[in-house]
Amino acid sequence: MRSPAGNAELALLLEVSGTPKPGNVDRHRDLADLRFEHFLAGAVGARDGLALAADGAAVGPAFERAVEGMATQEGGNTQFGALLLLVPLVRAAREELSQPVAEAVVQETTVGDAASFYRAFDHVDVGVDDPPEDMATLDVRRGADAIPALEERGLTLFDIMERSVPGDGVAREWVRGFDRSFAAAERLAAADGPISDRTAAVFLSLLAERPDTLVATRHDEATAREVTDRAAELVADDALETDPEAVEPFAADLVDRGVNPGTTADITAAGLFIGLEHGAIEL
Amino acid sequence: MRSPAGNAELALLLEVSGTPKPGNVDRHRDLADLRFEHFLAGAVGARDGLALAADGAAVGPAFERAVEGMATQEGGNTQFGALLLLVPLVRAAREELSQPVAEAVVQETTVGDAASFYRAFDHVDVGVDDPPEDMATLDVRRGADAIPALEERGLTLFDIMERSVPGDGVAREWVRGFDRSFAAAERLAAADGPISDRTAAVFLSLLAERPDTLVATRHDEATAREVTDRAAELVADDALETDPEAVEPFAADLVDRGVNPGTTADITAAGLFIGLEHGAIEL
Repeated sequence: MRSPAGNAELALLLEVSGTPKPGNVDRHRDLADLRFEHFLAGAVGARDGLALAADGAAVGPAFERAVEGMATQEGGNTQFGALLLLVPLVRAAREELSQPVAEAVVQETTVGDAASFYRAFDHVDVGVDDPPEDMATLDVRRGADAIPALEERGLTLFDIMERSVPGDGVAREWVRGFDRSFAAAERLAAADGPISDRTAAVFLSLLAERPDTLVATRHDEATAREVTDRAAELVADDALETDPEAVEPFAADLVDRGVNPGTTADITAAGLFIGLEHGAIEL
Repeated sequence: MRSPAGNAELALLLEVSGTPKPGNVDRHRDLADLRFEHFLAGAVGARDGLALAADGAAVGPAFERAVEGMATQEGGNTQFGALLLLVPLVRAAREELSQPVAEAVVQETTVGDAASFYRAFDHVDVGVDDPPEDMATLDVRRGADAIPALEERGLTLFDIMERSVPGDGVAREWVRGFDRSFAAAERLAAADGPISDRTAAVFLSLLAERPDTLVATRHDEATAREVTDRAAELVADDALETDPEAVEPFAADLVDRGVNPGTTADITAAGLFIGLEHGAIEL
């Protein structure tokens, strides 16, 4: 039997291998400076931090370690958001991998966990938006420099995530009991065929449901909305099943425009982990 | 910096991702019952055994553990031969990853290491040939049942490997100081482009040099020779650089005939590990 840390690493590998995943690196597509091999190395590098979480380390330090290891490759940020979902889920799996337990894990995070989270930004460049005005001293891009302000205000990592909704789809999972991650796991289990195909189908269904917040951050809300609408049309037409070729122009267009629905990929990875842990995805 | 165990796992992932690798599973090709995802899970599962070797465990027990973990997926044998190369190389990296040190590591193996090696065959079906008549009681397919005969004859794991040459290209590496593995690492470092392309080029160059012993075992010597001759023609034409399409019919034909040059892939993985450890392959 694979360990929870092993399953979390495998979830990262299966996520990047799912194809077609329009706009993102996948088994059949590289971006100019961000290639499949960087994601492989990112997943391998994250393993020790994931193992810390599995051994019962606090969420913040385990996450920081996972990000530090993930960043030991030359492609830049590959799986920051996915790890922010996986680390608390791995921690929850010590007791039971359910929504209530995962919710309790994130609600019990501390100011110390928040400090580790900020330190993680020193290891890698992450695409984030400007914070609201009253949060300027807490801009995550300040990294460890923001820790004194954080401690002064006594904010836990859960508090930080709460303040990042609705602009951040990963933070939204933290405050909503990982509902889309668990839904993704159910869909992965219900789908047929090789895991790569199922991953692609679930990715597209998630993208069709809600605009990707990384796309909204890097481009704008209108772009994110347009991408979701096009994904919804493909899902409505059951394109992956009936006319896979129809997905290709969409995928190519997103890559050309540099539109990468990374948050949707993060949630897909979390769903893969849950499915593997529950034995609902057999491999 | 990645740990040696991390680099060994990454080498397995990079090997299976290199494409085109005629006859084998690669980033763009699955076989009927053996898919890319099985290799991902095999690599993840091998990690704990590789970490044992990195921590100084004896070669046999570390190998058995790596194989047991590798086999925790439903595709069957994915990386047995590669692990038989990687485990002593990871062990050597504790001191220095050089041919003389790797040679010393394998020459110092014991009867206990040989017993672990035999037990590893209980975890997974491996394609091997009938042993010579005087080795019948030591047929590896007997798994742990062969251990009493092994102990009676006092054979170390190195002794077993010595008796498996020339029919086994992995065993040949053990008795020849891993010369093709180190040569592969040099070629990988000297090549240009994404690692996936370099891996494919080095795989083809190795295949062009010597008949693959797994092909000879599963089919016959003539088939192995024919595959090598065709690979040599493609290498002579510099096909991967000048006419990549020319490689496709070869790849498709091998898959159709069920011809999988697995030993060549094993040596490619060993070369990738050496290149990563030496910093000659940057990623």
